[in-house]
Amino acid sequence: MIHPQQTSGMPFRKYVPFHEQIPFELPDRTWPTKRIEQAPRWCAVDLRDGNQALIDPMNSERKLRMFQLLVKMGYKEIEVGFPSASQTDYDFCRELIEGGHIPDDVTIQVLTQCRDHLIERTYDAIRGSKQAIVHFYNSTSALQRKVVFGLDQDGIIDIAVQAARLCKKLEETIPDTTIYYEYSPESYTGTELDFAMRICNAVVDVIDPTPDHKIIVNLPATVEMATPNVYADSIEWMIRHLERRESIVVSLHPHNDRGTGVAAAELGYLAGADRIEGCLFGNGERTGNVCLVTLGMNLFSQGIDPQIDFSDIDEVRRTVEYCNQLPVGERHPYGGDLVFTAFSGSHQDAIKKGFEAMATEAKEKGTSIDDLVWGVPYLPIDPHDLGRSYEAVVRVNSQSGKGGVAYIMKTEHQMDLPRRLQIEFSGVVQRGVDQDGGEVAPAELWARFQDEYLPDAAKRWGRFELANVVTDSTVDGASTIEATVRDGDTSVTINGTGNGPIAAFVDALSTVEGTPDVRVLDYAEHALSAGGDARAAAYVECAVGDRVLWGVGVDPSIVTASIKAIVSAVNRAERDSVPKP
Amino acid sequence: MIHPQQTSGMPFRKYVPFHEQIPFELPDRTWPTKRIEQAPRWCAVDLRDGNQALIDPMNSERKLRMFQLLVKMGYKEIEVGFPSASQTDYDFCRELIEGGHIPDDVTIQVLTQCRDHLIERTYDAIRGSKQAIVHFYNSTSALQRKVVFGLDQDGIIDIAVQAARLCKKLEETIPDTTIYYEYSPESYTGTELDFAMRICNAVVDVIDPTPDHKIIVNLPATVEMATPNVYADSIEWMIRHLERRESIVVSLHPHNDRGTGVAAAELGYLAGADRIEGCLFGNGERTGNVCLVTLGMNLFSQGIDPQIDFSDIDEVRRTVEYCNQLPVGERHPYGGDLVFTAFSGSHQDAIKKGFEAMATEAKEKGTSIDDLVWGVPYLPIDPHDLGRSYEAVVRVNSQSGKGGVAYIMKTEHQMDLPRRLQIEFSGVVQRGVDQDGGEVAPAELWARFQDEYLPDAAKRWGRFELANVVTDSTVDGASTIEATVRDGDTSVTINGTGNGPIAAFVDALSTVEGTPDVRVLDYAEHALSAGGDARAAAYVECAVGDRVLWGVGVDPSIVTASIKAIVSAVNRAERDSVPKP
Repeated sequence: MIHPQQTSGMPFRKYVPFHEQIPFELPDRTWPTKRIEQAPRWCAVDLRDGNQALIDPMNSERKLRMFQLLVKMGYKEIEVGFPSASQTDYDFCRELIEGGHIPDDVTIQVLTQCRDHLIERTYDAIRGSKQAIVHFYNSTSALQRKVVFGLDQDGIIDIAVQAARLCKKLEETIPDTTIYYEYSPESYTGTELDFAMRICNAVVDVIDPTPDHKIIVNLPATVEMATPNVYADSIEWMIRHLERRESIVVSLHPHNDRGTGVAAAELGYLAGADRIEGCLFGNGERTGNVCLVTLGMNLFSQGIDPQIDFSDIDEVRRTVEYCNQLPVGERHPYGGDLVFTAFSGSHQDAIKKGFEAMATEAKEKGTSIDDLVWGVPYLPIDPHDLGRSYEAVVRVNSQSGKGGVAYIMKTEHQMDLPRRLQIEFSGVVQRGVDQDGGEVAPAELWARFQDEYLPDAAKRWGRFELANVVTDSTVDGASTIEATVRDGDTSVTINGTGNGPIAAFVDALSTVEGTPDVRVLDYAEHALSAGGDARAAAYVECAVGDRVLWGVGVDPSIVTASIKAIVSAVNRAERDSVPKP
Repeated sequence: MIHPQQTSGMPFRKYVPFHEQIPFELPDRTWPTKRIEQAPRWCAVDLRDGNQALIDPMNSERKLRMFQLLVKMGYKEIEVGFPSASQTDYDFCRELIEGGHIPDDVTIQVLTQCRDHLIERTYDAIRGSKQAIVHFYNSTSALQRKVVFGLDQDGIIDIAVQAARLCKKLEETIPDTTIYYEYSPESYTGTELDFAMRICNAVVDVIDPTPDHKIIVNLPATVEMATPNVYADSIEWMIRHLERRESIVVSLHPHNDRGTGVAAAELGYLAGADRIEGCLFGNGERTGNVCLVTLGMNLFSQGIDPQIDFSDIDEVRRTVEYCNQLPVGERHPYGGDLVFTAFSGSHQDAIKKGFEAMATEAKEKGTSIDDLVWGVPYLPIDPHDLGRSYEAVVRVNSQSGKGGVAYIMKTEHQMDLPRRLQIEFSGVVQRGVDQDGGEVAPAELWARFQDEYLPDAAKRWGRFELANVVTDSTVDGASTIEATVRDGDTSVTINGTGNGPIAAFVDALSTVEGTPDVRVLDYAEHALSAGGDARAAAYVECAVGDRVLWGVGVDPSIVTASIKAIVSAVNRAERDSVPKP
């Protein structure tokens, strides 16, 4: 076959390959022969490197939730902020210490640049903590020395050494706090290795660590600049050249510009590093920090204890999404919506046979599947171990490979269900599948939706049915409503007021004897297609008596659709409370 | 520092490390010393492996758009489907051939299992194409042999060899098509290497390739099971053991279960492979196939021509998102929204200095920045090379590091602007920045929004203002409206009918002399907080005369909010058509 690929025409010549920028050789590298056998020391930097890369940085409430999540999962070293650069970070640091939020076996870490007033402010921020890691850094890359600092190598070393000296001095001002140090030659990946070695050795010399009280030397891939084997080579090179290795914790801090942050961490760890900094689900500057979930679960899948608890991954993900206000991608390893889902028939078949083989083996051995070595094709780990159900796999099987409930509702019926309604309706579908067995085709899915949420004129199952509505709204004033509804077999006209037709209808409904108390918690509404004449779908989440449930209404009028949705929710509550006819 | 991490309590012991499952050694590996110097042969499998992993698989229109995108970007080998397993794929294959959509220098590839009737159907599917790659596979892993097939190694080899023989025979039935072959020992990563070698050599023997007419031997990481250096070792091992290497194109097909698919592809390529299969933005089963964008751009960033055109990455992304109906993550390398965005002040400062240094250098040399070696801190490549602007960087600077317009509107004002309205309003903001210069703080952003969309009682800039609305809706029937509006300096009462209050109001408005024709194209509405008493925000996209523009209304009543939104759109159209007072 001829190889007909053509030149792209892109300006690739303006880039210099990494090995010409930072030349070094390590022909006798040893890391490719090694194997990972235990978890590294983890440090979670979600509250610092992660937070600073958010569109909407965390407020103190979100910060505390993230901190508590990290503690609960088992992280013992947590970088909590850059208190000298941000008042919010400073205040949060104080809140953690003064509010007693830091368990005794957890060490907070704070970042600071190598500038006197910032370092001083940093010590103020950690005063009163039992122990803390002061993480000071300066940028060392050839590029930054030239364009940002205009200093030679000795000038850059001087910045770091002066900072180390000031740190040592300030340590005396907070004698009740045990201080550890971390030094980062920031932009390490763009730094000549012999210079990185020189500056680290100079800093170590000032800090004067011991094997019992080590310094952390962190070698960040501030920007990922080469394939991950090159990063591993550089780590092995550095470890060979660092003095007082026995008093140093070598730490990695990979970013993901080339999409190989996880690999860089793993290969760098093979190369002899002791510790890895990263963020849950890979949040962080630009393409993110290395993902701590992926690293931990990769260990787990090899029979190695990650020393971090991922057993409720969905809860971890929800909290991370809430704190970061960024979604976790559908295909994110271990945590994405689709990562344990098989759509292809042959994959589904193999998975089914794998489960059956495990069940047989368990039966033969008189044990549980959980006690067997895991072995199901296309499922590298047991989703149960992450607290996920087999539902995704089953669900897809039961729907002819066409995917999720929400998706079918949207693509086939233009109904964009709010997330909590999706969850509620999925449960309805799942119960139906469990009861009736077999498949749920898209058409049947719609029938189930109608049966559950929309009034069916033929079946007439609901207590209430809306016949007519008249509303009168004054701008920014009260709305009044007059609605005619069928209540069982009789027709009644009810009146109510409120600051909009929904509130007015709820008010009117409360005048009907024997209706439960209704409160509207949330609603959403959208057109089913373009045009002012199109029908609207309204979704209303109601507390009806003690229950919280959704109602749905469809009508050309947005008002009527909303009110129908309330009727739907109330009817559903009523239906569930009495035996079906 | 004591290392206080505790056991996670997770059941890690049920997993066996990879090196115990598939033991092999390669102490004299050579790949870690090699460097990538040119692009591999690429094969895009978006239409097959990508498509089969979609919640909503592509229809023929989306398939054709994907195919045309891939061709336009420069891919010359495109796996277009699994025609024997899917009628849609079969029909699409025929459409490509009969519709003349395949350029002469592009080779389509079709996948088939090693089953007689499927292979026969596959040859029917490609009849009439100038050339095609028939890609046959069977699963070879120890696990699948045991639980899925119940066959020993010889039985599995027999399946592959019989298929190869049938292929050779069927080749004679379509003499006008030049056939190439690809064989995949599927689930290769779970296959003992000596068995993978045996089965590949047996297949190669039947196909009988030559250096001028090679076979592709594809070694997929169907499930990623180990660190990427181990995959590279296995590729180097295989290449040493494959017979007739000079007649073989060794191909990689990494998945991403451990988040290291890109690394596996790069290290496997260093290990001697010739070709890489993947998908744009890493779509594919579970965690996805390896991302072709990341691989290509990683080459580019090292001064190597990717032989694929990524110069309009946003267009590529839009098409991929449309075809896959899945979003590309904010932090996806090279293509995500946030990957060239710096939020931290020190990063922004360094970037600014980097740009300044390049500008100075260009001036001194009397050349353009585009002709210089790229060197800006925190920007591994020039966003311009991907057709992206520097706007993200600039924009964030101009908004005190708080991010995008839509985000601020949502987080600070609970307003969830529809996407097209986001775009419209961003333009409004951008024009303001360009005119006035300086920063746009969140508070100012809100002022601009109010000024543009919401009526300002003090300024009273709009022609119309809503005073009162009475609507009367019959269920599933007509709505009538009586609205009192201020038109300039006079108050008028107007009446209209329609199938909902929005349509009725548009009808009523048409009775006012001198109003342009109004058509509603889309609308969305949501509560601004929980509770039926909460205010609602309504967004209405209208065609007003010749223009299409959005209006926004906020009111406790959903009806009034919608009608205010129409008034907003009409007022905006009128304002733009006359000089401002």
